[in-house]
Formats: sequence, C-alpha cells, structure tokens
Amino acid sequence: MNRILGVLISGRGSNLQALIDAIKHGRLDATIAVVISNREDASGLERARQAGIEAICISHHGWLSRDDYDRALVDELRRRNVGLVCLAGFMRVVGSPLLDAYPNAIVNVHPSLLPSFAGVDAQRKALDHGVKVSGVTVHLVTAELDDGPIILQRVVRVLDDDRPETLADRILQEEHLAYPTAVGLLLDGEWRIEGRRFLRARTSAAR
Amino acid sequence: MNRILGVLISGRGSNLQALIDAIKHGRLDATIAVVISNREDASGLERARQAGIEAICISHHGWLSRDDYDRALVDELRRRNVGLVCLAGFMRVVGSPLLDAYPNAIVNVHPSLLPSFAGVDAQRKALDHGVKVSGVTVHLVTAELDDGPIILQRVVRVLDDDRPETLADRILQEEHLAYPTAVGLLLDGEWRIEGRRFLRARTSAAR
Repeated sequence: MNRILGVLISGRGSNLQALIDAIKHGRLDATIAVVISNREDASGLERARQAGIEAICISHHGWLSRDDYDRALVDELRRRNVGLVCLAGFMRVVGSPLLDAYPNAIVNVHPSLLPSFAGVDAQRKALDHGVKVSGVTVHLVTAELDDGPIILQRVVRVLDDDRPETLADRILQEEHLAYPTAVGLLLDGEWRIEGRRFLRARTSAAR
Repeated sequence: MNRILGVLISGRGSNLQALIDAIKHGRLDATIAVVISNREDASGLERARQAGIEAICISHHGWLSRDDYDRALVDELRRRNVGLVCLAGFMRVVGSPLLDAYPNAIVNVHPSLLPSFAGVDAQRKALDHGVKVSGVTVHLVTAELDDGPIILQRVVRVLDDDRPETLADRILQEEHLAYPTAVGLLLDGEWRIEGRRFLRARTSAAR
C-alpha cells in the first residue's frame, strides 16, 4: 500500500478535515491525491480545494447501474495512483467493483462501538438503548455494512443528560483523533487479518 | 428497596465473593441474607458459609414447571425479606414469577459491553469478532436475555495476543469492581428508568 489517499465524501467532510490537519501537522505521513463527492453541493469539496487538494464531484445519478458508478470511482482513484480509499461521510454503499479494486484498502469510521449500533443514527440508537459507553470504530470496508475488520476503537462515555446531538459532538471529537491514527496504522503496513481480527505485526493470536 | 440482598449462583460465585468483600470492607452498605444455588455442588455455597452467610441449594430438578421452581425461589427470598436479588453466575433463565415479585430489583453482570455479545461465551465472541474494546455490563434483569436497563459499564481493552481465557480474566477483574458499585447505586435509590435508560437522580434526559 502506498501513502496516496483518495477520500470519498457526501457532505461537509469533517473527518476529511481531520486527515488534512493530521497530514499538515506531521501526525500522518500521507498525501491526499483527490477528494471525490457524489454530491455537487458537498461543502467538503470546498474544504479540500482550500487545502490545495483536487476535489471533484462524480454524481451517482445517470449511470446504467450502481456497478458502473463504482467503476467510474475506481477509474478516478487509479488514475491518481490512490493506494488507500478513506470514506468520510460517504453516504453510498460501496459495491463490488470498488471493493475488488481495493481489497482491505478501503477504510471507514463509524460513530459507535461496533458491532453495537451499525447503520444510520448510531448515536441516537446508543442513547435510546441506554448504554453507558459508546464510541468510535475505524474499520476496513467489506460488502457487509459496518462489519469489516476493526482497526481501532475509542470509547466515549454516555452522560445521563446527553441528547443525541451532545453525544454525537463528543463522539465526533474522538473520530477526528481516531481516524488519522487508524489510517496511519494501515499505511505502516505492519498488520495482518486473522479471521475477523486486525492484528499488529509481531503479535500472535495463538488460541 | 431495603438493603437486604439475596444472591443466586450456580458455580463458584466469584462475583458473590466480590459482594461479600465490598460489604466487609465498607464499600457496600448491604447485608446478604441468603445465597441460593440451583446446584448442590456449587463451590460458592461453601464460600458463603465461610463468610457466615446462610447458603442453601434449591435444585431446579423435580418441579412440575419452571414457574414452580421460580415460585420456590421467591418464597425463600421473601421469607428473608430480600429487597434486591443479585445474580452471580446463575445459569437459569429468570421466569415471570421471580420477575413479577422483584420488578426492577433483580440485577446481573455480563462480561461484554451489551448489546454486543449477549448470551453465553461473550468473551470468545468478542475476541472472534475482532473488537478492540470489550468490558462489563451490570444491568437490571427483564424477560429478555441480557437486555434490561444498563446500570453501569466498564471498558476492558482487547489485546492482540489475548486468548479467550486472558480476556475473560481481565474482564472478571472489572466485574468484581463494577458489580458492588452498581449494587450500591441501586440500593441508594436515587435513580429512575426512562424508556430503556437507567438515570441517576437530579439529571434530566430532556430530548
């Protein structure tokens, strides 16, 4: 895996900003080659351009199939020699053309301690369930939603007076810390997958 | 809720010991009136007797129905004026006679961060799933397995070289801390249930 990132967004891309900042301040040794949004109005596009990063929209509308859309993404990513694809609020299911082109090289961040509260609205689900801790999961992307090997998790305490927004805000702060760290782990390449487990090098999971 | 506990066990009752120790050292203001095992050979019975606590076996065999067994438990608990029922490795599903007799007054401890990894073998499930954090959940017991309102959760980091036994050991240490603490919270009575949420007094969960 080279150190060239492609970032996929659909909205403001606050985790994109976390990656930009981590690179800028030397906490992450990587380059963002391109930011791609499926929506023209994603404010993250402007965020990228302001950081001097190429930012393009590839709308998900108008394709004959979802696979065709995915193939268009792969074309743009490969053209720029992207080695690791970072999802940052990309609100599209990743299909097999993209998964096949980037095996174990697509990463996402989710605002809960997976496997609890997969899918949308994870923070509200956690609050409604009454958990006392939630958090952040950075994981490799597979065909199953929010189900790939877990690279890193960070814990956020749930407070009695939390509302979904206050909990989401605190979780987001941890996302901004966790995501660049996990991307750095991936790029360092000293890891392997055993079963579902993401393990660092020179450790064994002998059972 | 008075401060008289009844503890139900099926085995060694290490969480029973944690309650005994917490009471002995003044960290938990409570009395254990009786320890009941469904198995004659549970070593926790001897543990209780050594601490001067009445310990009896009520086998789950030989009853006409599961409800009859549960009613027998209720009789023994009520006879001793038990206010809070603590499960400590009690390997029986709690049925409606016991649930109805002790509404929001039966507590259990589970070796995972629920709702992840309910049911048996939670530590191995967590390891196989590849989570980076697991932990302990103390919760009120309802008719659904491992699903009642969560009183307290404590986090345990999962290490790359963990085996199910090493993870279970570290989680057990946290159980021994969490369980007496949660029982103390319950006995203090400054709490309420909102939806599924267990909330401390003088906090509001305004949404």
